[in-house]
Amino acid sequence: MNPFQENETFRMETFSDGVFAIDITLLTFQLKAPEHPDGEYSSLLLLHALAEQWPAYIAFLLSFATIFIIWVNHHRMYNVIHRSDSRFMFYNGAHLLLVSSIPFTTSLMANYINTEAMAVASFFYMMLFAGICGTLLLMWRHATKDYLLLKRPAADVRVILVRTGLLISISAYTIAALISFLVPYVSLVIGLALVIYLSRLKYHRERVV
Amino acid sequence: MNPFQENETFRMETFSDGVFAIDITLLTFQLKAPEHPDGEYSSLLLLHALAEQWPAYIAFLLSFATIFIIWVNHHRMYNVIHRSDSRFMFYNGAHLLLVSSIPFTTSLMANYINTEAMAVASFFYMMLFAGICGTLLLMWRHATKDYLLLKRPAADVRVILVRTGLLISISAYTIAALISFLVPYVSLVIGLALVIYLSRLKYHRERVV
Amino acid sequence: MNPFQENETFRMETFSDGVFAIDITLLTFQLKAPEHPDGEYSSLLLLHALAEQWPAYIAFLLSFATIFIIWVNHHRMYNVIHRSDSRFMFYNGAHLLLVSSIPFTTSLMANYINTEAMAVASFFYMMLFAGICGTLLLMWRHATKDYLLLKRPAADVRVILVRTGLLISISAYTIAALISFLVPYVSLVIGLALVIYLSRLKYHRERVV
Amino acid sequence: MNPFQENETFRMETFSDGVFAIDITLLTFQLKAPEHPDGEYSSLLLLHALAEQWPAYIAFLLSFATIFIIWVNHHRMYNVIHRSDSRFMFYNGAHLLLVSSIPFTTSLMANYINTEAMAVASFFYMMLFAGICGTLLLMWRHATKDYLLLKRPAADVRVILVRTGLLISISAYTIAALISFLVPYVSLVIGLALVIYLSRLKYHRERVV
Repeated sequence: MNPFQENETFRMETFSDGVFAIDITLLTFQLKAPEHPDGEYSSLLLLHALAEQWPAYIAFLLSFATIFIIWVNHHRMYNVIHRSDSRFMFYNGAHLLLVSSIPFTTSLMANYINTEAMAVASFFYMMLFAGICGTLLLMWRHATKDYLLLKRPAADVRVILVRTGLLISISAYTIAALISFLVPYVSLVIGLALVIYLSRLKYHRERVV
Repeated sequence: MNPFQENETFRMETFSDGVFAIDITLLTFQLKAPEHPDGEYSSLLLLHALAEQWPAYIAFLLSFATIFIIWVNHHRMYNVIHRSDSRFMFYNGAHLLLVSSIPFTTSLMANYINTEAMAVASFFYMMLFAGICGTLLLMWRHATKDYLLLKRPAADVRVILVRTGLLISISAYTIAALISFLVPYVSLVIGLALVIYLSRLKYHRERVV
Repeated sequence: MNPFQENETFRMETFSDGVFAIDITLLTFQLKAPEHPDGEYSSLLLLHALAEQWPAYIAFLLSFATIFIIWVNHHRMYNVIHRSDSRFMFYNGAHLLLVSSIPFTTSLMANYINTEAMAVASFFYMMLFAGICGTLLLMWRHATKDYLLLKRPAADVRVILVRTGLLISISAYTIAALISFLVPYVSLVIGLALVIYLSRLKYHRERVV
Repeated sequence: MNPFQENETFRMETFSDGVFAIDITLLTFQLKAPEHPDGEYSSLLLLHALAEQWPAYIAFLLSFATIFIIWVNHHRMYNVIHRSDSRFMFYNGAHLLLVSSIPFTTSLMANYINTEAMAVASFFYMMLFAGICGTLLLMWRHATKDYLLLKRPAADVRVILVRTGLLISISAYTIAALISFLVPYVSLVIGLALVIYLSRLKYHRERVV
């Protein structure tokens, strides 16, 4: 083996894992211990203050689940990929740019979920996920073109199925974004359904990890 | 070896390590340099202000020790595990979700430790650790079922002992959570005892690292 | 192989990847959900508030692209490097010191981009990138001196081309810094052009990843 | 090779690298873009405001250099270590606990460097570094006892020299801490000297990386 070729995708995976791990951990920072007006401490008041933060919990849980599922897909994609090239690296960079914007749209969501402005917050939240699936699709199309970057033997890699799955996800997230202006809570349900859908996307006939 | 099988658990470990490392490092952000009212600087005043932050130090130390011990257990579990599957990956995701919530319950604890609302803060703090041990147990039960995901030879892997140890930890953390409503400081002592208990859990007859 | 020599550059790469990943992810923290004065929530107001944050988006995007491209160059350099020594490690440390200062100059930029003080903010912003390319040049000169730290065979490593490319980048960033005092927005355009230039720097005749 | 023994120190190094990388990157958060009172923007005012933050820059630079040098020593130590055990892992945990407290003492330093309370801030700052060298010494003593955890052949590992070097560092940091109460700026100079001293500590006769 050429010494310049070892571990070709290794550092890109490490770097991406770093970005994913930081992103998913920093979501917690949406969750703040409620302030206590001096002199007013009681368990009931604290419980009440915690309960009032429910929008932040919903935004946190949905974002955590979605980031994790995107990481799982990123991981599964790299599992069948053998080498990299310049274009693939830049698609991966665009992917990370969008992924690292999730905490921003999550905090928009947490701040505006129960207000009249929820439609706008939810629109950007869902469009960002559509864009993230879009960059995954760009990566996948490039990696599978002429089986260019795939591990051998590539016969069991499910090229078409994953392409279709990502296209469906992009469409569904876009629909969820548009529905935000009509019935915003329905778009959250679509977001949740997509977490489950994306968790089941198989990149290889036998290997699903 | 099948090229699709190499490093099967590698990226999940890297990703988890990232989440653990960020979480444990961000705990420090509970610790803030005391403000100094303008014109009033003296070493005595600073010492006094630092001493007043004792609840934050306790919460920081206990959380640091607990996260580290959970990481050690996570590490030891993966030490005897050879491969992964979809379900194991999602149990690991649930585990990370709870782990990444520790800074939130820690800041609750630090803010309310010396108030009437400590009971509630302590309850959530301990229940979260119970849940974390619960996800470790789910991972372990799945990995050891029919020795499915274990490294070979698996004869020296202490399947039952670890299962019992995690069950004991879950129960003890739950008891600590409930005791919070009676004598909250006792629940902290139980938490400390569990750090020591969990540090001694052996996943393999010979290997303890 | 000497057991003391394995993975010689491995941990330095891991550590650097960590710093890069954290830096690029924390940029998002410049982006804050707009505050909403109580009682005044509407989608239009939120859109308006989001649009007013355009300086932060520009600073975020340019910094993200630049950090990513610097990481790509760091990655490509290590791709042709076989071993390390003390001096190389300290050059790498100086490199990371400057890289980890990017969020500071980015927040300067985001805060002052549309004010009279933009010249100063832009000057430091561009000089930092000049310094970062300078540390890359120090690393490269040391690694390629007598082909000291290069992988073998080193015939296809483009020693002179990379040296020239980094010198050009340093000069261009310095010019961009000076131009800040005359027409600050032109320096941003130079910064963007350099992202593209640096993305095309080839460290090896055949390998470009 | 026993499958349970591969990569024995690997995850501990990854985890430690994560903590070091986060810590060193988060130091930048001491550096804040100066606020601009509305209507008052000029390059001169910004330069002035930036210059007034000099204590933060000093604290940032000294802490960055020290964390980096401690990481270098941690890296060099693991370079000659072959395996791990429970005690070594817990010493490493104590080491990381202290390392992750550096941002706290650094912010103390940055806030109080030019006040009467600098003595106390500097005392804790230096004692923390003494403690960090202390945990490195604990790790080294345990690893080299009967050459227990060292790579083979261990003849060229400089057991005594490193032990002495760490003892000298602990003493010097303690002296720097005590001198804080007399002439605080001298303790900063000692801190700087120790960065250089620790950067030159050789763990192996031939290998210095």
